[in-house]
Amino acid sequence: MRDTTTTRLRSLDPLFHPRSIAVIGASDDPLRIGGRPIAYALQLGYTGKIYPVNPKRETVQGLPAYARIGDVPDHVDCAIIAVPGPLVADAMRACAAKRVRGIVLFSGGFAELGEDGRRLQEEIGRIAREGGMRLLGPNCIGAFSVPHRAFPVFLSGVTGQVPAARVRIGLASQSGGYGGHILKLAEQRGLAVHELVTTGNEADVEVGEVIHWMAESPDIDLILAYVEGVRSKEAFIAGLAAAHRNRKPVVLMKVGATEAGAAAAASHTAALAGADGIYDAVIREYGAYRAGCTEEVLDIACALSAGKPLLDRKLGVISISGGAAVQIADFACAAGLRLEPPDAGVQRRLREISPFGSPLNPVDITAQVGNQPEIFEDTLEQLVEAGYDAILAWLGPSIAHPRAGARMREALERMSRKRPDVLVTISVMGEPAALAALRDAGCLLYEEPRRAITALAALDHFQRAFSTPLPARPGLHGVELLEPDTVFNEVQGKQVLARAGVPLLDERLVRTAGEAAAAARAIGRPVAVKVVSADIVHKSDIGGVALGLATPQDAADAVTRMAAAMPRRAPGARIDGYLVSPMLADGVECIVGVHADPLFGPVVMFGIGGVLVEVMQDVAFALAPLDLQGALDLVRRVKGHRLLTGFRGKPPADIAALAKALVAISKLAARNADRLHTLEVNPVYVLPEGQGVVALDAVVQTGAVRPPRPEAIP
Amino acid sequence: MRDTTTTRLRSLDPLFHPRSIAVIGASDDPLRIGGRPIAYALQLGYTGKIYPVNPKRETVQGLPAYARIGDVPDHVDCAIIAVPGPLVADAMRACAAKRVRGIVLFSGGFAELGEDGRRLQEEIGRIAREGGMRLLGPNCIGAFSVPHRAFPVFLSGVTGQVPAARVRIGLASQSGGYGGHILKLAEQRGLAVHELVTTGNEADVEVGEVIHWMAESPDIDLILAYVEGVRSKEAFIAGLAAAHRNRKPVVLMKVGATEAGAAAAASHTAALAGADGIYDAVIREYGAYRAGCTEEVLDIACALSAGKPLLDRKLGVISISGGAAVQIADFACAAGLRLEPPDAGVQRRLREISPFGSPLNPVDITAQVGNQPEIFEDTLEQLVEAGYDAILAWLGPSIAHPRAGARMREALERMSRKRPDVLVTISVMGEPAALAALRDAGCLLYEEPRRAITALAALDHFQRAFSTPLPARPGLHGVELLEPDTVFNEVQGKQVLARAGVPLLDERLVRTAGEAAAAARAIGRPVAVKVVSADIVHKSDIGGVALGLATPQDAADAVTRMAAAMPRRAPGARIDGYLVSPMLADGVECIVGVHADPLFGPVVMFGIGGVLVEVMQDVAFALAPLDLQGALDLVRRVKGHRLLTGFRGKPPADIAALAKALVAISKLAARNADRLHTLEVNPVYVLPEGQGVVALDAVVQTGAVRPPRPEAIP
Repeated sequence: MRDTTTTRLRSLDPLFHPRSIAVIGASDDPLRIGGRPIAYALQLGYTGKIYPVNPKRETVQGLPAYARIGDVPDHVDCAIIAVPGPLVADAMRACAAKRVRGIVLFSGGFAELGEDGRRLQEEIGRIAREGGMRLLGPNCIGAFSVPHRAFPVFLSGVTGQVPAARVRIGLASQSGGYGGHILKLAEQRGLAVHELVTTGNEADVEVGEVIHWMAESPDIDLILAYVEGVRSKEAFIAGLAAAHRNRKPVVLMKVGATEAGAAAAASHTAALAGADGIYDAVIREYGAYRAGCTEEVLDIACALSAGKPLLDRKLGVISISGGAAVQIADFACAAGLRLEPPDAGVQRRLREISPFGSPLNPVDITAQVGNQPEIFEDTLEQLVEAGYDAILAWLGPSIAHPRAGARMREALERMSRKRPDVLVTISVMGEPAALAALRDAGCLLYEEPRRAITALAALDHFQRAFSTPLPARPGLHGVELLEPDTVFNEVQGKQVLARAGVPLLDERLVRTAGEAAAAARAIGRPVAVKVVSADIVHKSDIGGVALGLATPQDAADAVTRMAAAMPRRAPGARIDGYLVSPMLADGVECIVGVHADPLFGPVVMFGIGGVLVEVMQDVAFALAPLDLQGALDLVRRVKGHRLLTGFRGKPPADIAALAKALVAISKLAARNADRLHTLEVNPVYVLPEGQGVVALDAVVQTGAVRPPRPEAIP
Repeated sequence: MRDTTTTRLRSLDPLFHPRSIAVIGASDDPLRIGGRPIAYALQLGYTGKIYPVNPKRETVQGLPAYARIGDVPDHVDCAIIAVPGPLVADAMRACAAKRVRGIVLFSGGFAELGEDGRRLQEEIGRIAREGGMRLLGPNCIGAFSVPHRAFPVFLSGVTGQVPAARVRIGLASQSGGYGGHILKLAEQRGLAVHELVTTGNEADVEVGEVIHWMAESPDIDLILAYVEGVRSKEAFIAGLAAAHRNRKPVVLMKVGATEAGAAAAASHTAALAGADGIYDAVIREYGAYRAGCTEEVLDIACALSAGKPLLDRKLGVISISGGAAVQIADFACAAGLRLEPPDAGVQRRLREISPFGSPLNPVDITAQVGNQPEIFEDTLEQLVEAGYDAILAWLGPSIAHPRAGARMREALERMSRKRPDVLVTISVMGEPAALAALRDAGCLLYEEPRRAITALAALDHFQRAFSTPLPARPGLHGVELLEPDTVFNEVQGKQVLARAGVPLLDERLVRTAGEAAAAARAIGRPVAVKVVSADIVHKSDIGGVALGLATPQDAADAVTRMAAAMPRRAPGARIDGYLVSPMLADGVECIVGVHADPLFGPVVMFGIGGVLVEVMQDVAFALAPLDLQGALDLVRRVKGHRLLTGFRGKPPADIAALAKALVAISKLAARNADRLHTLEVNPVYVLPEGQGVVALDAVVQTGAVRPPRPEAIP
């Protein structure tokens, strides 16, 4: 971590575990907004000094109160502000004068209320920046840190207790209300949320920085994040990258469309998948997991909380029902989770254990386990010994079985003692006491097997993500800076591409049959001849296109024929000449676009031409610039990818050349991030392996140079 | 309902509510398989006679026992058999002699154990058929009917109690074990399962018949079904159709691949989407809902159990969190559930109620409701008065709010009394007591809003399904019966299609320039000329294709040119002539296939040509034969459908002609169901509106005539 980054991260400490706090708008009532943080500090073992600020009282909750923060006789690390919106700016100025380092601002009445509020919010942001203070909020419910016994928060029901757990959770939420909701759900599930931070309107501190702070915190192992819209790409990406570097899973829920996305929806490239697809791409590129709903966040958090990664990514499934086994195989397949069958020897032993079951994976041990409970334990042991590092067992209601249920529970307890490294997940229903016993034995429990599979697939996701390096961003040295405010015509646009290193078609405009023959000779392969006229729309309908001309003489004949026929077939059309171009065969048309995203900057879009893009929206996005590996990943992410690998007897396409072109286009886009408006190459024609690609068309447009973002405070 | 159908359905009554029962293999121990049905009959108020059969005992559970069923002095309506597999056949013969009408066969040891068991199962099936007895099982856990106090079942924990409910559930499951599991989950959720039937190995009674029986039963309003593989198309479809006719929702879980699907996987058409896609199509055509997992079945059953259909299909959403509102809008959109905004007047009033919220749908009332709980009730009333017949409210943890929580609960209780017809769904978390109070007020509760939306979307599904007629099957009078065991070549195949009413391309084989001119003149529009030679693979590369020939003279010139050039360019190639065909422009290539499904018979597959089918598997299926409406529905079900409606400046395609061709092909397939092996038309070229379609290729193959299914017992 670079020093400036460290400094900037450390500037958040006064917010999340302040050494001393003042509460401006302090209340004697421990249930009121201005009372709760004091009550928590007193009750939950906060070790720093507490200074209530309230001009109307001598004491607050038994502590001496101060009329103004300036009256506090000591240094104040963090000021919690809980006064009405219109009074906030003055309070913050007083804090700045007092050299407070962090502000937790509960008050609402800012950007969430429209234009006036937005102006007020800008003002307090400025006060914070100029005063060298970090500001959490406004319109947030604050933060807490259980390990630091710090609770600058007004959420009700904070206990300061967490269950003992190997995996300590940090929860970062933009929404105070929804963050509190997720916290309560997590507590219900027995998850250990050690730190909560809500960022509210984000006048200063944003959720990406909080993720970053948690990624570097020694107190956090797993980060859950609730995001409504990211404010700065850099902070968000730095946060995800730090978590990846430190191998801390980030399970993120991103809802709705950004302002950026809405603005971008007008542009063709973005409208194809919406800004949401760009979020997907960024989250994926940086190894985080995007969950579709809150329940999924928590299901996955439970699985990750077991602290047992799928090192060998081998999941063994045991089922006492054939139907459940089929379901689980279906769910695993849909989730991209491979169920490897055991080797022949293990299969033979499994067949001995359950003669009427199935020894493949899922292993169906049948309801016979009701009569012979040892079948379950024997199967479990076989699979664990065979190297499966996670087991999913569908036991349905059998835990309630009068005889077999207890035996199966004992088997699970024994396994948990013998092999605490093996993750055992049970899909089961039953009385709370029986379930609690299984949980105590270290088992993960999911009633619905589909949810178990989703959670296990997320473990697999992180195992893959942590063993894959983050995208490398190539340098932009020597990449052309385009003229701003320019609409490049097709020829100019293609020249821009050519200078960037994207090959063009070797085509020549000729006027005579002789020139056509010469052009065909120079091209040195079969050519096509097309009449060039702005007055002729459907060239091929009137014989204005000749394909597959094998020799220079054929090309010359074609021009002669067209020259003779056009006056009759397209009377009055002005003929500008004839285009002689190499016949392209066996290639695949692709589309490469650059979307200038207001939030993420230039984003490269890739798709395979025609209906896959237009009808199926089969496109993938990646941030620019890309290196070769990133370009290859991007290409592989479209569903139609197999069209490039030798589909239906076609030769495999030159994916290496395509990737090089993508890198070139992405670098051009990144170099011109401050001015690029549109860059679309449609189609990029990808020839068979070894023959390269050509850009057949190009739309390039720049706008005014956009100023860089305002300098962030140090 | 026709009389034979009625008779056949009524033949199931002795199984599901027998007037008298004998238990063969009766046990004195009420916990054993042969003891449980007797214990249930005694304890749960069965009103018929009970005859234990056990040669070793004088009495069983206090009742006089008989050595053989023949010794029972009275008529026996239903015999429950719980003896080891090898003794079953003899027991059944004794039942047949005693003129028992139904057998519930618990015993295992049949088809589930392989070849020997399969033979034994066939034998007992025959005994039942010949003895005029209906047979449930083998390898099932039986059935129960709470309203008839009949419990021929060996599942543990049957209480004979159901909660009072407007909607009475029938649960039909092939798997005994999984059926019991679903039952217990349903009971946990407070659902009223009035009848349970498990069909096990289905030697006779199959799940489709059970669905049918429940669809016609006055005791059942909602059918849940768990299906691993359907045995007969007719019974399955008759069951779904009866449920649709009687407006009883069927929520069905179908897992895994059928034997039929496995067999069919080898055939190209089926492999495109797998037999599973055919199940999807059939379930959809007949208005049932296919759930993806057990949790979804139960979530939807809960919603349907409220007994409040979405008549106006207007769902109003209220949220106290902006983020939750965005989530719900996302989920609704993904589930195809439209959230209609309120009209301007209502919006104005909503804005007055929540000045800082959003009056659109979802209506965001913000956390302000904590200070002003009346906001919730006022909003609720506005929406209900505005005609929303269902409300989804996201209240998160606010039910626990010290002041507002109780007020919101009261508002919900008042609304439930005032407008019991309005379905109120709450996404909420909280203490069990608070949640129970909401449930008592008639609210549906889902912690996760995505699950609430899935359940509400299912209500919408049934509302749509019940207002859509079932597919009509056109008659097959006059449709050609093809020769069996024949491989038709392309020309013959096309002639078959032409006779069925599918237009072909008007193309002519010529030998000379003069013939080419005559052919072009007869075709009467621009033509293409192609050299015909088995020795030339890439015609266009060597100038063997001329397109867009506007006049007969152009066509003649093209032939002259090719005749001159071919000896030079393709030395030694044997030239069979030249094909003159009309230029087709602006059309869309489609694929129509018929998959001869071993279970469902001929199934029509439709897709839009090229990559959409090959790469994206964008195909849809429907049972043959189709009427025009069914054909139009089929076309609309592929995602690429917009390619046919005037995509990107193309003229709209002649969908009416395409539908007519689909009807013709489907009738041909249905007429030849007993022999058809392959029928594929690829491509069907769909011209612009008014210009029709042409079949450009055809593969037709028949096999041996398959015998009709064995006659079912009456």
